[in-house]
Order: sequence, then structure tokens, then C-alpha cells
Amino acid sequence: MIKITLPDGSVREFSESITVMDVAKDISEGFARNVISAKFNNTIVETSTELTTDGNLVLFTWRDNEGKQAFRHSTSHVLAQALEELYPGVKLSIGPAIDNGFYYDVDLGDQTISEKDFQAIEGKMLEIARGKHEFKMRSVSKSDALAKYKKEGNEYKLELIENLEDGTITFCDHDTFTDLCRGGHIPNTGLIKAVKIMSVAGAYWRGDEKNKQLTRVYGTSFPKQKELKEYLELLEEAKKRDHRKLGKELGFFTFSQKVGQGLPLWLPKGAALRERLENFLKKAQKKAGYEMVVTPHIGQKELYVTSGHYAKYGEDSFQPINTPAEGEEFLLKPMNCPHHCEIYNSAPWSYRDLPIRYAEFGTVYRYEQSGELHGLTRVRGFTQDDAHIFCTPDQLDEEFKKVIDLVLYVFGSLGFENFTAQVSLRDPDNPEKYIGDVENWEKAENAIISAAKDKGLDYVIETGEAAFYGPKLDFMVKDALGRSWQLGTIQVDYNLPERFDLEYKGSDNEMHRPIMIHRAPFGSMERFIAILLEHTAGNFPLWLMPEQVIVLSISEKYEKYAEKVLNLLENNEIRALADHRNETMGKKIREAEMKKIPYIVIVGEQEEKNNTISVRKHGGEDIGAINIDEFTDIITKEINRTLKPFNG
Amino acid sequence: MIKITLPDGSVREFSESITVMDVAKDISEGFARNVISAKFNNTIVETSTELTTDGNLVLFTWRDNEGKQAFRHSTSHVLAQALEELYPGVKLSIGPAIDNGFYYDVDLGDQTISEKDFQAIEGKMLEIARGKHEFKMRSVSKSDALAKYKKEGNEYKLELIENLEDGTITFCDHDTFTDLCRGGHIPNTGLIKAVKIMSVAGAYWRGDEKNKQLTRVYGTSFPKQKELKEYLELLEEAKKRDHRKLGKELGFFTFSQKVGQGLPLWLPKGAALRERLENFLKKAQKKAGYEMVVTPHIGQKELYVTSGHYAKYGEDSFQPINTPAEGEEFLLKPMNCPHHCEIYNSAPWSYRDLPIRYAEFGTVYRYEQSGELHGLTRVRGFTQDDAHIFCTPDQLDEEFKKVIDLVLYVFGSLGFENFTAQVSLRDPDNPEKYIGDVENWEKAENAIISAAKDKGLDYVIETGEAAFYGPKLDFMVKDALGRSWQLGTIQVDYNLPERFDLEYKGSDNEMHRPIMIHRAPFGSMERFIAILLEHTAGNFPLWLMPEQVIVLSISEKYEKYAEKVLNLLENNEIRALADHRNETMGKKIREAEMKKIPYIVIVGEQEEKNNTISVRKHGGEDIGAINIDEFTDIITKEINRTLKPFNG
Repeated sequence: MIKITLPDGSVREFSESITVMDVAKDISEGFARNVISAKFNNTIVETSTELTTDGNLVLFTWRDNEGKQAFRHSTSHVLAQALEELYPGVKLSIGPAIDNGFYYDVDLGDQTISEKDFQAIEGKMLEIARGKHEFKMRSVSKSDALAKYKKEGNEYKLELIENLEDGTITFCDHDTFTDLCRGGHIPNTGLIKAVKIMSVAGAYWRGDEKNKQLTRVYGTSFPKQKELKEYLELLEEAKKRDHRKLGKELGFFTFSQKVGQGLPLWLPKGAALRERLENFLKKAQKKAGYEMVVTPHIGQKELYVTSGHYAKYGEDSFQPINTPAEGEEFLLKPMNCPHHCEIYNSAPWSYRDLPIRYAEFGTVYRYEQSGELHGLTRVRGFTQDDAHIFCTPDQLDEEFKKVIDLVLYVFGSLGFENFTAQVSLRDPDNPEKYIGDVENWEKAENAIISAAKDKGLDYVIETGEAAFYGPKLDFMVKDALGRSWQLGTIQVDYNLPERFDLEYKGSDNEMHRPIMIHRAPFGSMERFIAILLEHTAGNFPLWLMPEQVIVLSISEKYEKYAEKVLNLLENNEIRALADHRNETMGKKIREAEMKKIPYIVIVGEQEEKNNTISVRKHGGEDIGAINIDEFTDIITKEINRTLKPFNG
Repeated sequence: MIKITLPDGSVREFSESITVMDVAKDISEGFARNVISAKFNNTIVETSTELTTDGNLVLFTWRDNEGKQAFRHSTSHVLAQALEELYPGVKLSIGPAIDNGFYYDVDLGDQTISEKDFQAIEGKMLEIARGKHEFKMRSVSKSDALAKYKKEGNEYKLELIENLEDGTITFCDHDTFTDLCRGGHIPNTGLIKAVKIMSVAGAYWRGDEKNKQLTRVYGTSFPKQKELKEYLELLEEAKKRDHRKLGKELGFFTFSQKVGQGLPLWLPKGAALRERLENFLKKAQKKAGYEMVVTPHIGQKELYVTSGHYAKYGEDSFQPINTPAEGEEFLLKPMNCPHHCEIYNSAPWSYRDLPIRYAEFGTVYRYEQSGELHGLTRVRGFTQDDAHIFCTPDQLDEEFKKVIDLVLYVFGSLGFENFTAQVSLRDPDNPEKYIGDVENWEKAENAIISAAKDKGLDYVIETGEAAFYGPKLDFMVKDALGRSWQLGTIQVDYNLPERFDLEYKGSDNEMHRPIMIHRAPFGSMERFIAILLEHTAGNFPLWLMPEQVIVLSISEKYEKYAEKVLNLLENNEIRALADHRNETMGKKIREAEMKKIPYIVIVGEQEEKNNTISVRKHGGEDIGAINIDEFTDIITKEINRTLKPFNG
């Protein structure tokens, strides 16, 4: 008798050993058709693997990340076979699955692959796929394994095998092809209906530039042509929306070699956008009882030794700043919290004063290697929309809910409607890993879970994922292209109050430690603006647009009327500009569309005569001739639809 | 015949040698009575000095700084005589005039001076003064000078004399007292009518801590008792207004040993004040065509080598920040201009795009020795209300005027009504000291002078005081205690455009260099707020006050009505808070007065019944019972009186 436990806790019993696929079929034939890979007792197995002991089985379909990984890994075998057939003498090295695809690093000898060869490779791969060849794993002895590749003269595989222990080595066969492989495949090549070679690049063997440079062939694959097509369209769209490209086109930010890499310079339009976002959050925060503070961008090394940040960031970040005399050592601040703790510590507090909520748009600096830098999403200096709440244990529940309200308000006002939450709790089996007493942890964890429930969040609980200093709640936001971003974090902290010896006098007249909550709805201004740019392709909610309206005069004759319109709009707090250039209306409209200005107002003879304006929306929708009051009404309504006042 | 030229250019001829005082009497007997010191051919002389050659003579009265200096220096001789008489065996070292007084460093042997001795010293000094002893200079040979102090066993004077050249040594005699002295005295001790010993402190001989510690006796003196009294009152008032004291009382800022000295942490009320000031300036700047930018707080060393700031600040400021890899070197930015130049350089410009005006509240860091640090006026990190205007030479005139308008608007809105301006021009005799061609300098200097004239400024021209990179205009503001502060600077710069190779395409289709204007009406937020605190004693213009109104309920019964009043005020954008504590009305009012809240609103039975409020102003003036509309009207009017919209 074998007992197989499924993820839902149900147990199926089988009288003799069976394959993974048999279990799937036992659940349902329809389901089994979709199963492409599996994990048995936490180890990746094949669908053909025979189960001979009791255990936990997880079955994966294409919808699961593990399923996708098996699918792409299997496709890399097919790619390798195709390359062997098309490029005789090619030496294979490694070919893993990666996000959205796979690659294979190969030594082509004197041969080369360029873009014009991609179609032939894809053709060969699909031809192999159509053969519906099963992937079959088999164990080989180290000596047999070495013998195969010695014969082929493949020094890469030989080096890999040398590092493996005899008895653990497996090959995977399909069709005429065999590869050294740990396993994790789909049932057969026939499931691969769509393949695409994406690019080729140079890659040093084992990532070491002292080694030979191999050719890395990147590809992707799908179970349906339609899915590949959609994916390629998404890539095309993502390229168009790349915030580095849009940021340049819209005049938001720039970088300077002289100032240094990873240090954005915000141009007027970008700086205005930042300020608008900051003011938006400031307003909500004020309503929610936060107080703004301002702290310096450096602190003595001792401050960060106290906070523990020096131990965490010190060696790997920007190095200490020495002074010409007095032997002081400062650091660029990697976080604002130590400064806020020192502000808290500058006065005595009673339980009646709490909660205290300090907020700051604090610019912090952390060193990243130049290769890791990427536009605004990975920089060396960034401004956090930071705040720290100091509260009593009894207030934690309420405060946590309030922070969730604020985060949801921010997401809602900026058009992020699709998000999930992750609650990270401590591992109850390893209490020694965490600071703070168990009772408080339980209180905090319950507070977070009840807040998440109460606020109707779609959340998952990850046990053991809490930081050592406290549990947390992270928000994962899906953008318009379906990509996930971590945005917004709320963290409970028992550590810093301890390290900074923070206190308040309780109603019992004794001194107590407050609890700290760290939170940042945007995360950082830089990263948030990058994601917002890619999410909206620059078509922000109207209230946030740098320019909401452009007034185009049909000819010089109507410039005066256009200016009158402009003034009226500006008097109504609408951000507008005029284009009086002596260019064709077609060109002016095209340029306004390029700038993503939401409303284009056109004025000429008819409009001046009737005291109206002709309005068209970004994208082409024609609103026609209306008067200015009607127009400001349309704009006000659109703004009020997305930007509601915060009632937290 | 001797020709004496006076500062107004007039020439007086004398048939034989005459004394300085004779020339003064020749001008007018009345004037001569006020003359207390003089400069002949740029050298300090006595009023008794005989003039035997032609030359330029400047006569000083008590109203001149030079006159005050002679007066205080002379008083230090009187102090020294008094100390010799009161403390037998005292050894004198040096006794110069300083701002607002003088000191003498003396070696008292086993004796000590403490506060209880001050009166006796003052008495002795006045007794000597009343003798109307003339100060008389005489030359002595080095050997005679050494002999005198050898006899007295005064190693300090001996050391001083050893370092002097024979033939240049002079003594000054008055009454029975003689001192080694370079000269510069008032006619006689009788002019000294009021003296005050301020304090005693330790001071190492020649400022070297390896030397013996002497006793430094600080004093001051005046020609009238009344003036001394006023000065002491001023000191008392300045102590009360010390921004470090007020800043703490009002909860504006704090310092933390752990964060580091000279790095202020802005508490909520101070941060709100800063933000209000920033928003005030932003609004005016927006109207004046400035665009905000945001730049990082660090830049590569190379950036500051290019700008020349590294040569100026490098060695003596915060040292370079290294990276853990890649060998990069960054510096905390000491100025924002290099970053703004790089922003300018990020795009091509035509003459039609100019002027471009980049503004930033940019926080910069400059190392100061800890002994130099002082509250918010001398810090290591501060936020400049910085802006850089890039314009064509033809636009300079207009731009300069616009900047003056803005500066005057800022001063006016903040209650600084008493100021002068200084125009610093190049030294035309040393053209090699300056960068930029002569024609442009002339244009710029004329632009500044014509702008100063045009705006009706009370200005002085200082030739040779320009920076090497361009002429400038500085504003000197007098505060309520009559102290002068340099606030607001406007500088023309030919240097950075050259160093950063800034260009624009002219109407002639050729590339040209723009001119830069640096300007900062506040100077820095930190220093400005410090001065504003001391100028207003915390009673800012109403629009700027952290809290404009406090609502006090007479008892719990009226808390609800008080909250209603509070809401109505807040709805009218009035910053108000309520005090419902169960304390006496007297205590609540006293505390509100301490917090400098401009309006105190009291509500009780009568007020609730009649739907009114009772209002009293900070300081006690009673406005009586009025309704809320009347009250908001009073407030709005008071705000509009100081805070007018900017029309620049």
C-alpha cells in the first residue's frame, strides 16, 4: 500500500507502485492532460517517475511557475538537439530555464549564429517537438558519463561531471538526443507548440572572464502559438513603455556621467511630478495624523552601529566619510529610521502622546554595482516616502489598519487596481531567531492578520518569512502588462526600539518600550514613478499629469483668444500650456499626442465667434465644441473620479 | 605747504606741520570735539600725530567702526593700568579691541579674578578715566624696550618685542602707565564715561595649548552711560531671543550626539515652518518663471574638479566617499551649481529657450570645525534656497532686476524692513585676476548698478570686492536688535559656464556661452530661520506662525462648542488647536502666550449662547466677543497685510 498525500491534505491509497501521471489520472483524466511536472516529497520529479513510497505529491500545470520551468527546461533540450543537428561539432555546456524562457550556452567552434539563423533553428525545434518524443531519465555511472563526453571531446560536460558524485549522475534522453541532466521535464516534446529564439550573446564559461567565451542562445516556448504571440506583443509594448525611454521623451529625468551613475537628476517636469505625488501623500498623511520631520543625509558611523545598519550595509555600501580634523566618521544614510529614533529620543513621552507618527521624504544612499543599476528602478540614491509610527502594543491593531487604509488609498488614486498582499510571520519552531517577546509577536501577527482580513485584502500567509525584528505585510501590484511589482510595505519592528532604548511612561507610571511600524506606500519616489510610467505608459491619472491641457491656435489671428482660454483654465487650477507656433494643426496635434497631454483644445474663428473651444482627448476621441465652463466641469469630474479625499 | 586731502575729495592747505586734531578743528570746532581717531595715508594715527607731508586723511568719530575700535583699544590700556594697580605683579600680554569691546590677556600669578571683583575693576578704571590723561605715543629702541620688560620680568612682552624690528617699536603712555603698542588711541581717557567688565575666561598664550594659560578679561566701554545701559539691555534681549533657546522652547529643532554635531534634526513644528517658507518662495518663484529640479546630495569627485569646488573645498571639507568596488570617488555636494550645470548640459538650447531658471531647495554639506559650530547659523549641513539662471548677456539686466524684486518681496513678507545693499565690482587695475572678457564684465557691472538704482536700493559700491568669476550684489539686513546679517546674495558667474562648456545657439546660428546668475534670497533655510527667530523673538508674521489660533474652553461643558469653533477655523484654512485640559484659564493662557500663539480664543457659556467667541491677541490686547466670521476676517486681513502676492 502506498499513501500519496495531495496539497489539499487529501490522501489517496494505491495498492502498488504507480507513476506520477497515474496519480494525476486517478484524480481526473481531464486534469491529468494538463499536468506537466511534479514535486514528490519536495523533490522535482518527472511525470513518468514511479512512486514506491508514501509521500507528498504536488502536481503542476502550465499555470504554475514550476510547470513553466519544466516546460522551458525541456525546450532547452530540444534547442540543444536542434543545434547539434544544425551546427555539427557544437559542444553543449549548460541550458537552464529562466524567467520567461531558457538559454543554452554552447561552444560553436568556428561557426556563428546570427539573427538570420533564428528561423531555421526554430523550424528544426518545432520539427523535433512534433515527434512527441518522451523525456526519459536514467542513472549512469560517473565513468560511463565521462566516457560519453570524452568521446565527444566536450570539456564542459566533463568538468561538470568531474564535480558530481558517482551514483547521483543522471542523463535525460529524448528522440536521438541525450544530455547530462538533473531532471524536471514535461511528459513529451509534443506539448511544445510554439518556440522563439530571442537573442544570442557572449557568455564566459562558468561566468569567469578568464574562461572561454561561449555563445548563449536565449529562447522561449509556449504550449500555444497564441500565447507566444501575446507574449511577444507584451514585450513590444513593454519596450515602448520602458520608463527609461518614456522618462527621456517626457523630460522627467536624466543621468550625468560626471555626477555619477545611478544618481538621477530630476528635470523640471519630473521634479514637478514628484512634488505632486509628495503633496498628494502629504495631504493624506496629515489627515491620518502624521507629522513631517527633516533629517540630514549623513550620520555618524556610531549611529548606524547602534541601529545595526552598519553591520548590514557597512562593508558593501558607500564607505565612511572622514573629516579633515577631529577624526569623525560619517556615513551616507542608508535608512531614515535611526534619525527618527533620535528625534523620538529628544523628548520624554507618555502613553497619552502615542501614537507618534514621523514622516519624511528622506533621500537615502546605498551602493549598487554599476552592472546592477537600471533606470530608476535600481539606483544608488533614492527618496523614500518613509514614516515611522511609535505606538503602544495596544495601539498596534488600530495603527496597522490605518496604514493599510492609506496604502489602499494611494493605490486607488494612482490606478493600481490589481494587487495581492503577503503576510510574513515568524517560524514558530525557531523562536531563537527573533527579537522581542513571544507574547508581543503573537499580538503583532494577530494584528496584521486581522487587519488584512478586516480590510478585505487578498492575502497569503508565509510562515518563517518575517524579518528577525518583526512580522510584515507586503503588497504585490500587477501592472497593465501583468507584471508583478512589490510596492508598499508595512513592517513591525521590536528591534530598533530596543537598540535605541526608546521609552514612554505608561498609565502604570512605569517606563515601557514602544513598538515601531515602518511603512512606505510608494516605496521610493524613483521606483514608484518608474513603475507608474510603465503601468500607464505615461498616461497618468489626470490629476497627476504634468500638463492637463494644451491650447492650439489655428493661426496667429487666434493667439489672443487662445491666451484668454489659457488664462481661464489656469484660473481654474488647470495645468495648461499653449502652442502658438506657426506649424500645421496636424503637426501640433501629433506633438501634443506624443507628450501624452490628456486634452487638446483647438481655437479658431468659429470658437472665438461663439466663445467656445473645440476639445479632443488624447488618443483621438472628439468631444467637440463646448464652452469653458463645461470643459472645466469635465476635467473636475474626471479628477474627482480618481482623486478622492482620504478619509482615513 | 602741506596739502591734506579729505575723503570728500576736498583739499586743505596748511603752511606748517599740524596735528590731526588741528585739521579737524580747521573743518569745524564742533566736529573736532567728536573726532576720536584717524587714518593718514591708510595708516592708523593718533589725533595728536603731527602731519608733515601731503596725504589723505580720514577722521573718525564714535559712529565709525574705526572710532569704536580706537575707543575700545584705549580702554584696554585703562583696564591694564587698573589691573596693575589692583593686582600687584600682574604680567600683561596683549589687549586688542574686538567687536563690541576689548579684552586683555594677563598672567595673574597666584591671584584670581572672579565676578565679584568686576565692580572694583570698573571703579578703578573710571577713576583713571576721569583723570583725562592723554594717550601719547613714543618710539623706543629695541634694547630699551627689552630692558623695561626684563626689569619687570614679563616674558610675554619680551617675546613680542623679540619678534619686532628695531626702529619700529613704540610705547604708549598715559597717566603713570606705559604699554608696548602700535598706536590708534582716542585723545584722552576722559572720553571713557562708561565701562563694564563682561567676563573672564582662560586663554592660552598665543592660542597654543602647550603654552601657559592666561586670564582673559573681557570688557566694553562707551562714551555715555546711557549707551552702555542700552547695550546691556540689548544683550539681555538677545539672550532671550537666542534662536537655540527659542528653537528648543518652540519645538523647532534638536541636535543629536549620535547623528553628529552641526546636523540639525527638524522636529514637526520646525519642519512645518520650513515647508511653509519653502512653499511661500516656490509660489513666488513659479510666478517668476523658475522651474524646480531635484539633484542628488553626492557627485563624483570629477564633477567638483571640473567646477573648481574640489580645489576650494576638497582638502578642508568632508573627505571623499569610496565605493567597495569599481574605485569610484564621490563627495558630499558643497554646492548645487555643478549639478544644475549638468542638467543644463543634458539638452541643446537655443537663445529662444533662455533664460532658463533652475531652482532647488538643495541640501549641501560643508565641514566646519566643531568649535565653529553655532546653533543653526553655523552648521555642517544646510538647505540652500538655491537657483541658477542661465541667460544671454542681453538678458542680464532684466534678470538681475527680477531677482532683486524677488529678494525684496521675500524681505517684505517676512518683516525685514531695514536693509542695505553692497555692489562688489572688479578691481579695474588688476584685470588678470578675473575670468570673462572685459566687455561682458562691464555689461554685468552696469547691469547690477542700474538694477540697484532702478529698484531704489540703498547701496554702496565696493571696488575690488567682486569674486574672480563675476560681480555680485549682497543684502545686509538689520534685525530688531540692530544687528546686521548678510541675507540674500545675487552673483553673476562667467566661470562655471566656461568650466562646464555651457552653450546655446544664438540668433546668428553660432554657439555662445550663457551667463549664470546664482541667487538665494534666504541664503539657507537654517540660517534664515535662526535670524528670523532672533529678529521676531518667535512672533513671526501671522501667515507663517506654526499655530495661528488656540481655542480654550472654560470647562469641559464647552468642549463640544470649542471643537465646533476649531472646525470652522480649520475649514477657513486657519491653523488652530484646542486646549480642553482641566486646568485653570490662567494657566492655559500663560502657556499659550509662551508658545507665542497670536490669537487666543476663549469659549464658555456666554459665547456658546450667543454663538460668538472671545478673542485676545498674544501680548494681552483684548478684542472681545465677536462672531467667527468677523474673526476670520481679522485674520485674513492681517495675513494679507504682510503676505501680498508676488507680482514679479
